Amino acid sequence: MKRSQRIAAMTHYFKENPRALVSLPFFVRTYEAAKSSISEDIDIIDDMFRQLGIGRIETVSGYSGGVKYVPDYPLASSQQFVDELIDLLQVPSRILPGGYLYMSDLLGHNYYIRRIGKIFGAAFQQTEADYVVTVATKGIPIAYAVAEALNLPVVIIRRDPIVTEGSTISINYVSGSSRKIQSMALAKRHIEPGSNVILVDDFMKAGGTIKGMESLMAEFDAKVQGIGVLAEAEDEEEERRVNNYTSLLKIQDVNEITGDVSVLRGNYFDQ
Amino acid sequence: MKRSQRIAAMTHYFKENPRALVSLPFFVRTYEAAKSSISEDIDIIDDMFRQLGIGRIETVSGYSGGVKYVPDYPLASSQQFVDELIDLLQVPSRILPGGYLYMSDLLGHNYYIRRIGKIFGAAFQQTEADYVVTVATKGIPIAYAVAEALNLPVVIIRRDPIVTEGSTISINYVSGSSRKIQSMALAKRHIEPGSNVILVDDFMKAGGTIKGMESLMAEFDAKVQGIGVLAEAEDEEEERRVNNYTSLLKIQDVNEITGDVSVLRGNYFDQ
Repeated sequence: MKRSQRIAAMTHYFKENPRALVSLPFFVRTYEAAKSSISEDIDIIDDMFRQLGIGRIETVSGYSGGVKYVPDYPLASSQQFVDELIDLLQVPSRILPGGYLYMSDLLGHNYYIRRIGKIFGAAFQQTEADYVVTVATKGIPIAYAVAEALNLPVVIIRRDPIVTEGSTISINYVSGSSRKIQSMALAKRHIEPGSNVILVDDFMKAGGTIKGMESLMAEFDAKVQGIGVLAEAEDEEEERRVNNYTSLLKIQDVNEITGDVSVLRGNYFDQ
Repeated sequence: MKRSQRIAAMTHYFKENPRALVSLPFFVRTYEAAKSSISEDIDIIDDMFRQLGIGRIETVSGYSGGVKYVPDYPLASSQQFVDELIDLLQVPSRILPGGYLYMSDLLGHNYYIRRIGKIFGAAFQQTEADYVVTVATKGIPIAYAVAEALNLPVVIIRRDPIVTEGSTISINYVSGSSRKIQSMALAKRHIEPGSNVILVDDFMKAGGTIKGMESLMAEFDAKVQGIGVLAEAEDEEEERRVNNYTSLLKIQDVNEITGDVSVLRGNYFDQ
């Protein structure tokens, strides 16, 4: 097999298996090439990935060592992408009752979802976590996209009682936006006690839902290492109850009467 | 830029943009290479993708032509993957009340979800569809994975009433498993009238939920072009109400008393 063919195959392999350790002998066997050739191939791919800003191939030395692809997403591309989202969102027809913005069409496209996942993946790349946790429904695709970048499993908290997954822990919480008592539940088998987690959701106002997720995680003895919300918005009537979160968008003003929508970059870009 | 570097960059590009048409001049500009070199690069990548069984680079001729990556997933890999799933599922501790099997842990991993998406993507690659439609909650990650392979948007039907997305169409249906009247709803802005859709869900017994989705799609004048369910199971008390579906797994027997679990390959492999 020629170098150019191996490079195509190995680039495919790395992109399919982010953050997974693979030994050089695996590539040597698969492509029937000398170890020195494989090493040079990896250098070329590493160099190109760095140029493209999509991450790097890391070498893990030692007996059980090998290489792994650690994805990244450049800040400039993140800004450009978020600005593109802002342009799409600042349209009067997106205004929904209660100061929300219609975003489901965008969140239905892998184009947007995967980029959102890559940005959070870059934001949380130093975080040691065991799971990406979200709450049904709209956070789910974002959580899977973040989990792909970080090579972690996803855990989905349910809002409705779960009847078919064994013993369950549920908590009640006050939703900031509707001021109603709501509940969320998670079957015990979903999270190992003592785990580290990243929480992900699509939208945060006062932060009641995130606060609820934090309480539920405490019941599992899980430590919250990061919180990512796609869009944050001010709640006029209530103080934010969550700190230390990362947002990509900040919905500044949604005026149902004048039709004005103002969306800014989120706090991820406040660096 | 050397050929090997371009191959790494272009392989990355194709994998990030499945089924998206890209013009050769775009690559010529981006990599500052001659058109003939780019054509040769594409031939190398096409050849390697075919060897790997992961699809092909198709050429679209004419004024607005170019190339696009059409993903595929080989039947042999699909069988191997589904057999791996079967081994993981045939464990007594997975038995849940009512003849269900605990699968959420597997569905939380991109490793499994993305492969399931690729297999359905291959199964439906000839289908002309505008949307992949699922119903909350467990079908959502599968739908996004299928949608990635087919480069289509996802539409999520909700089981709870939606308060914030404008006018909504909702229907009632009888759930096969619980024999209860349930409802599902979708905001009108989600689907253009007259569209073609693929329906996706994680599990089907009598098929009440899929039947409900079909009724809802009829309200949107949408035509169902394909139905994909990860796992099907017999309903002892009721005939199946859905035909023409594609399943990857068939749960043959789940015995809560003896602990026997028998899972077979689904009808996708009945060829």
